[in-house]
Amino acid sequence: MTAIVNPIVAVHSTGDGPSAWIAALKDEMPGVDARPALDIAGDDLARVDVSISWRLPHGVMARFSNLKLAQSIGAGVDHILEDPERPLHVPIARLIDPFMAGSMTHHIVLQILRWHRKADKFERFAAEHVWPMSEAFDHRKLHVAILGLGTLGEHLSRSLTALEIANTGWTRSPRSAAGVASVSGAAELDALLARSNVVVCLLPLTEQTEGVLCAELFAKLPKGALLVNVGRGGHLVEEDLIPALDSGQLSAAALDVFRQEPLPADHPFWSDARIYITPHIAAEVNPPTASIAFAKNIALIRAGETPTGLVDLDRGY
Amino acid sequence: MTAIVNPIVAVHSTGDGPSAWIAALKDEMPGVDARPALDIAGDDLARVDVSISWRLPHGVMARFSNLKLAQSIGAGVDHILEDPERPLHVPIARLIDPFMAGSMTHHIVLQILRWHRKADKFERFAAEHVWPMSEAFDHRKLHVAILGLGTLGEHLSRSLTALEIANTGWTRSPRSAAGVASVSGAAELDALLARSNVVVCLLPLTEQTEGVLCAELFAKLPKGALLVNVGRGGHLVEEDLIPALDSGQLSAAALDVFRQEPLPADHPFWSDARIYITPHIAAEVNPPTASIAFAKNIALIRAGETPTGLVDLDRGY
Repeated sequence: MTAIVNPIVAVHSTGDGPSAWIAALKDEMPGVDARPALDIAGDDLARVDVSISWRLPHGVMARFSNLKLAQSIGAGVDHILEDPERPLHVPIARLIDPFMAGSMTHHIVLQILRWHRKADKFERFAAEHVWPMSEAFDHRKLHVAILGLGTLGEHLSRSLTALEIANTGWTRSPRSAAGVASVSGAAELDALLARSNVVVCLLPLTEQTEGVLCAELFAKLPKGALLVNVGRGGHLVEEDLIPALDSGQLSAAALDVFRQEPLPADHPFWSDARIYITPHIAAEVNPPTASIAFAKNIALIRAGETPTGLVDLDRGY
Repeated sequence: MTAIVNPIVAVHSTGDGPSAWIAALKDEMPGVDARPALDIAGDDLARVDVSISWRLPHGVMARFSNLKLAQSIGAGVDHILEDPERPLHVPIARLIDPFMAGSMTHHIVLQILRWHRKADKFERFAAEHVWPMSEAFDHRKLHVAILGLGTLGEHLSRSLTALEIANTGWTRSPRSAAGVASVSGAAELDALLARSNVVVCLLPLTEQTEGVLCAELFAKLPKGALLVNVGRGGHLVEEDLIPALDSGQLSAAALDVFRQEPLPADHPFWSDARIYITPHIAAEVNPPTASIAFAKNIALIRAGETPTGLVDLDRGY
């Protein structure tokens, strides 16, 4: 791999576009030549060594003939893997931002505590100006199954433990992390679900995990459990959710991700009071802190070293 | 102090009455002679060595001529101090239940995260089936001032720190606790308020702290702060709250306690969307875990030893 003279970082994001990202990156890495990916053309295409992107239109990445790293703006990399023209030899890195793990944990703790402490019930009483009978909440009865034990899952586990909320992580293959209780494999998953009244999905989206949140999994939980999906919309079999709520198998669901985003205005989830919807904000990436991670990875790849957060392409995450 | 032969524990609580408490205490302390305080009469009055009570009618405690300990069902003891006939030589203990500290922390964390992550805004969008622009929440911008650093305040501080939420405790006189940042005295309180966008009141209710949450204190905070009151209703000057919200000095308040409880149906707080009302449930006492603490204190006082949670009667808490 030959070194590129005057290398360029190509930046792309949806929503507000790449300018906020470019500004934040320049704050962290003065002198960096960072440009909107879609504006790069001609001879400059061969000068791009790093792409920092969220939902870059398919085919664009393939134009960067000397690309050395495809850095995702976010923990998910499926938006890169889905590009049929993606250069297969280029390593892909997910964003590992300690700040983002904190934000994700805050979202999940908020959802669990809202449910555990019956926020809905007390909000309904308050709307009617009624002071209900008091109530004690016994958090010794909570047990959270964390599906997926990457950086975010481990962070969540340690935070729940600090809040005296019992929890166990699950991974496909055995994995251990200091201070984090975990099990692995299919049989142990069933036993874990049987003793968990909260399930949090933090899995990567792969062929194996697509549709994992389905009637069959819900049936393995004790009746009245809470589902929290902060993985990807594709993890949930959407048509299985309302029947599980109707039967009482689940008592509530807090969903931050959906098969189609934005969630269409006529989607039945919107009208179901048992489904708490947030618009993919659990761990919205924060440009100032994410740029610290991007700058480090750019420096590493340009020094010929291994960047952080590399995706195992055989596993797809 | 002479030992009482066949001593009796007198139990009183409001709401569902003393029976659940007596049953939980018997589970923890088989063979204990625990009876409803209001049913004890005649010679038995002199056999009562411990009173376990919540809002015992004034004058009842004075009838227990050999009382050795007035144990409160709850962290507050003002309901005992307010009894004009209370026997002044009898020590008073507040309930120190590690479980209750966890519950109080959960309530406060829920209120802080609801506010920080704009739950109200996203609930309004969801009610209209609208998917808003995404948003990142920068928890590095949070700083929580914890007024009162007893068992509950220290527990809260450690839990917030574990959640990466910066916080500082304040006490009237200097006090240090491992792993808890704290300041003390009037001048340091002003400086602390100036850099805190969340204030949590966990103070005891005394002559010094009555009305501490008032316009003067709100004015020392940065504009747009959140007030969380989980102390006592008497801490808040109620007529100062809505003007502070109207001026933007406070952006929201989460109140669990009120001057009059139940909060009257025509109280203006009910109709103000910026005020999040819960009906005194932040740390509702949990009979099974509280009874562990009660049984320990009964055993200690009967062995002539010092019970846990004794109130300093000069300070009133």
